[in-house]
Formats: sequence, structure tokens, C-alpha cells
Amino acid sequence: MNKNHYVAIMAGGIGSRFWPKSRVGYPKQFLDILNTGKSLIQWTYERFANFIPAENIFVVTSEEYTSIVQEQLPALPTDNIVAEPSRKNTAPCIAYISFKVLAKDPDATMIIAPADHLILDNAAFEATCAKAIDFVERNDALVTLGIKPTYPNTGYGYIQHEANSEEDHLFKVRTFTEKPNLELAKTFLLSGDFLWNAGIFIWKADTIINRFEKHQPEMFEVFATEKDKYNTGEEKEAIDRIYPLCTSVSIDYAIMEKAENVYVIPSSFGWSDLGTWASAYDNLEKDYLGNAVAGDKVMVVDATQCMISAPHDKLLVLQGLDDFIVVDTTDVLLICKKDKEQEIKEYVAEVKRNIGDKYL
Amino acid sequence: MNKNHYVAIMAGGIGSRFWPKSRVGYPKQFLDILNTGKSLIQWTYERFANFIPAENIFVVTSEEYTSIVQEQLPALPTDNIVAEPSRKNTAPCIAYISFKVLAKDPDATMIIAPADHLILDNAAFEATCAKAIDFVERNDALVTLGIKPTYPNTGYGYIQHEANSEEDHLFKVRTFTEKPNLELAKTFLLSGDFLWNAGIFIWKADTIINRFEKHQPEMFEVFATEKDKYNTGEEKEAIDRIYPLCTSVSIDYAIMEKAENVYVIPSSFGWSDLGTWASAYDNLEKDYLGNAVAGDKVMVVDATQCMISAPHDKLLVLQGLDDFIVVDTTDVLLICKKDKEQEIKEYVAEVKRNIGDKYL
Repeated sequence: MNKNHYVAIMAGGIGSRFWPKSRVGYPKQFLDILNTGKSLIQWTYERFANFIPAENIFVVTSEEYTSIVQEQLPALPTDNIVAEPSRKNTAPCIAYISFKVLAKDPDATMIIAPADHLILDNAAFEATCAKAIDFVERNDALVTLGIKPTYPNTGYGYIQHEANSEEDHLFKVRTFTEKPNLELAKTFLLSGDFLWNAGIFIWKADTIINRFEKHQPEMFEVFATEKDKYNTGEEKEAIDRIYPLCTSVSIDYAIMEKAENVYVIPSSFGWSDLGTWASAYDNLEKDYLGNAVAGDKVMVVDATQCMISAPHDKLLVLQGLDDFIVVDTTDVLLICKKDKEQEIKEYVAEVKRNIGDKYL
Repeated sequence: MNKNHYVAIMAGGIGSRFWPKSRVGYPKQFLDILNTGKSLIQWTYERFANFIPAENIFVVTSEEYTSIVQEQLPALPTDNIVAEPSRKNTAPCIAYISFKVLAKDPDATMIIAPADHLILDNAAFEATCAKAIDFVERNDALVTLGIKPTYPNTGYGYIQHEANSEEDHLFKVRTFTEKPNLELAKTFLLSGDFLWNAGIFIWKADTIINRFEKHQPEMFEVFATEKDKYNTGEEKEAIDRIYPLCTSVSIDYAIMEKAENVYVIPSSFGWSDLGTWASAYDNLEKDYLGNAVAGDKVMVVDATQCMISAPHDKLLVLQGLDDFIVVDTTDVLLICKKDKEQEIKEYVAEVKRNIGDKYL
């Protein structure tokens, strides 16, 4: 392990597409969506703890989730839980943690990773990160990990790279494309030079901050002005002042699409963003009728192709359901067709309108 | 009110076709299946309290349910809760309560009625009972109430009566037929002389006991031997001795089908046996998509023709379900097609085999 290597696990999302299992007060990253025995953030933490020094692992989250992080990751030093005063998408969050880490260690190399993704092949993931770290330590480069696509997913962003690699399977990025339509996604898949954007980044802290200075000078300025405050008793007060001044914008839009020194490593480490119940379904074992069951006492009589999630002690008896999502929790039961899962966000909005926040 | 008039409300069933809302430990008769604000036995009690003296209302139930009866019917004298030591179908139960009531009042006239049926027109019901009481007090007769059938139900028993009435719409019974097939049920409906067997009986206590003596001499004998014990401190001990000696048999099979003095009153008082979720569905108001909802926080997105039952505080969001039964409880969720509801008993049996009694 190298004492200059850091990771920032981003854990501020609210996971509304996994409602009702995921709640505003206890969202997806803190849940064991796939019934594995550990929450997603616990798996993410352990993955990095294999090759990043414990004191260099940071979790960036909302203030309201800091106590959950502490509870779920008891090995994480309290000071490494970084609270954002409000949700501002990924760019301000990354600016904050990068300034903070840089103030601590001018030679820091950072991995930025979401807390709530699934990665099955930890060894391949670690090897890919090592390659990226090595590259960014030798070059003025921002590296993103691109997943080799297996089907024309229309919900992901795509990264197109140059035909020839810089070195050993590391390519310069040509374009970023947000969620394409199906036809375009099929073309991307056939072309061979498009990858899924996994939202996992590797760079030196000073490299990304230079790029903030260049492409987001206003955001750079507000964070730079307070640079003496990071890792001191005055940090919280400074951040509370800075955050309201920041635009809510993604790191892709703010930096990655604008910078000319962006590289991608085509990767295969059993990745899923676990973005929806359908992707949870894809990642769970199925019974012989094609049902994916996350629950201990689910009795399927003759349902097929269903995604079923239930509390441990709840008995579910299901008959006649084909291609449904059934998510039962203590206070909410959701049943909907798998192909309507993009409507779940609308259901949540309607619940909010009709009943209020109680069930969100 | 006449001090010689009695009612025995039979409340020993386990209501397994209403599982999982109905449980062995707290079955259907004690539940508010239709979300009316009162349980079925509370409605039944109140219906009789209108025209039967309070001290003459008896509830016959299993020992395990006596405390529930006491809790739900606080006006009922404790001595009027009659506990059966084991489940033996209706004949032993009726023999017991008839001997007990006769020992108290040699002139007693009794109504025998299930605790868990739905009756909407209480005035018509009371008038029908009055007519039956009047008839059995003047004749050596057993009267049963027959419901004018409205469709060819294959789950009910049917009563065929003679063409000509004895007096004012009171007919002699020709045959009893258990659950016919659909073709036969259609023929019954067309014939005009078949009625649904509601399991509500009216007779003088001494008349039914004479019939036990004639048609079930062994059962008569064991109850008659202990006749000095009823309504004394020795009753319980006697009954504990008698019950194991009794065959488990229905009153229909034991007496009604054999006796020649059985009469029926064709009746219409908004009756349903509420035997299944489908009959609960029939008796509930529907939304404009044909869904019957017993629950306060059920959000139907585009389900149709469903029977939905949920705890008061549970939010249900339902999309894409057509013609389903959805019954959610604290610890069990059942989803099945309406036309598979006869399988619910099998599901219960399978749960018992696989998991044990916990969820029954």
C-alpha cells in the first residue's frame, strides 16, 4: 500500500429508483439490495481497504447520513467522514474532497468511486486501478474506467475512445455521450470503441484541481479561497459558506467533457451500477422459473421472471405473476411490471404529493 | 323480546380461506374483513341483540378463542361463552348447546347461526327469524333459512323444497345437495325450487334433541348421560369427557338430511357467507377500474378487478395487476389470481409443511 493513495467514496445519493426499499432517510448505498449479508457501501469500503491505507479512505456523504456511515463502517476514522451541507451533484463534491486531500498531501493520488455500485471481480478491479494510478502519476492525466458494454443499454452514459491506445490498453477519450436511444446504443456497441461510463475516476489531486481552475474557475475560486481551512476546526464553517455558492453540476459535464487530457481504461470486473430493480434482477441468481428472490421466506407458486425483495422474516406467497417487481418493506409494498420501473420515480412523486414525506 | 328465545352463535372456525388475514390464532369471525369498523362477530351479535334477550345470546367457540370473544363482545355474560374442547364440526357443537339451553329452559326456542356471515338487511333477517320461530313453536319442525340464489355458485350447498308451501312461504324440504358442478348449479337456478343453504337453523331445543335421539342415538346418549351437569360447575369436566367420544360430523349430514320434519324459508336479506376473498370482493365497493380495496393507503396506478386488503398504515402502490387477490399483513403477503383462490388452502398446507405453524 502506498501512503499517497486515497479513495473518496461518494455516498450522498438517495436511490429513489430503488424505492420503497431505498428511502430518503436510509438510501440504497446503505442497503443490502442483493441479500448478500453486507450493504453496498460495506462492500465498496472493503474493496478499497485491500489496497488503500485505512486512514486514506474517505466517505463523502450528506450530513444526515454521517451516523449511518459511522455505524456501517466502524473501522473508518470519524474524521474521514466528509459531510456535504447540501446535494450539489458530483462536481462540488469532488472539488471539496480534492482540495481537502491535497491540503493534507500534495502528492496525493485519488480514486473517486460511487458507494452503491456492484463489482464482482475485486482482483481485476484492483489491477485496473493500479494501472490507472501508475499512469496518472507519470502523466498530467484524468483517467476514467470504461466498462466493456455487453448490450445496448439506453440508461448509461457512453465514452468513445481513440482507436490506438496510448500504452497498454489505455486510450485517450474522444467523446462522452449521455443516455443514447436504442438505435444509437446498438451502433455504439457494434463500433467497438464505446464503453459504459462507470463514474469511477483516478487522478492526482493537483491534476483535477488544475482542471477545476481551468474549466470551472468560479467553483475553483470559492474552494481555493478557503484552502487554509481544510482539515482544521474551521473547515465545516467554510464549507457551509462555500456550498450555497456552487452550481449543482456533474463532474462529467463540468470537467470531463471539457478537458483534453482524459483517458479511459476499457475494463471488465463484473460491474453493475445497480441503478434499477431490473439491474438488481440481472445480478441475482434466478430460480428455474426465472425469478430473482432477495428474501428468506418467499414461496413462489407459479410466478415467472419476477424481481422479488422482501424483509427477512416476512412470508410471501406469490402466484400468477409474470415479469413483475414485488418489493415489500415494513410500511410500503410496491408491485409493478418490470418494464414500468422507470415510472417508480413518478410513483414516489405522487406519494409525496398525496401523502407527504412519511413513506419516502 | 321473548325470554324463551335463544341464539347460539357458532364461532369456532379457523377461516383458512381468508389466510393470511385470517389466522388460526385470530380467525375470520374476529376480523373486520370488509373494513366496516367492526368484526364479523360483532355485527352478528348486534343483529341478534335487537330481538333476543342479552342473557339468552350464547357464543360457542374453541377454548383458545374465549378471551377474544370476551374482548370483542364485552356485553356478553362470561357464562354465555361456551368453549368446545376440540373441533368436531357442527353436530356435536349443536348437541352440546341444545342440551345446555334445554337444561336451563325446557321451553327454549333456538336460532343457530354462524358468527362469520354477512347480512345486510337486518330488518328482513329479523322478520324471517320471527316467522321461523313462530312456526317451530307451533309445529314439530326444524327450520333452515334458504337464500334465493342469484347465480350458479358451485361452492354452496343447495336445498330443494316442495312446490307448494305449508303456509306463508314456508316449504317442506325435499333434498340437500352439497356443492354441485356448474351445469347442475345452473339447472338448480333455473328450476326455481333450489335455495342456498345458509347454515342458519331455527328449532325448539327439545325438537332438535329428539332428532339427535332418533338419528344420532350414540351422540344423543353421551350428551344425555351428563344432562344434570349442564350449567353447573361440573359442565366443563363432563364436556371434556364427552367430546372425544363424538364423531366429527356436520349437522346437515347428521340430522337435516335424515329428518323428515325439515322446512325452509326462502329468504332475501343481503346474505353472503363471506367464504372466500372473491365473495369479499363481491361485497365491497369497487373503484372505477373494478378494484375492491380494504385498506386506507392503497394507491392503484393501473390495476383492475383486484381484491386488495392491507393494514391501515401500510402504503401499497400497485401497477399492472389484473384480477388478482393481494392480501398484505404484518408478516405475510399473499398475491394470487382471483380464479386460483381455491388453492389458498393448499398454500397454507404447504407453508405448514415447509415452515411450520408460525405464519398460520
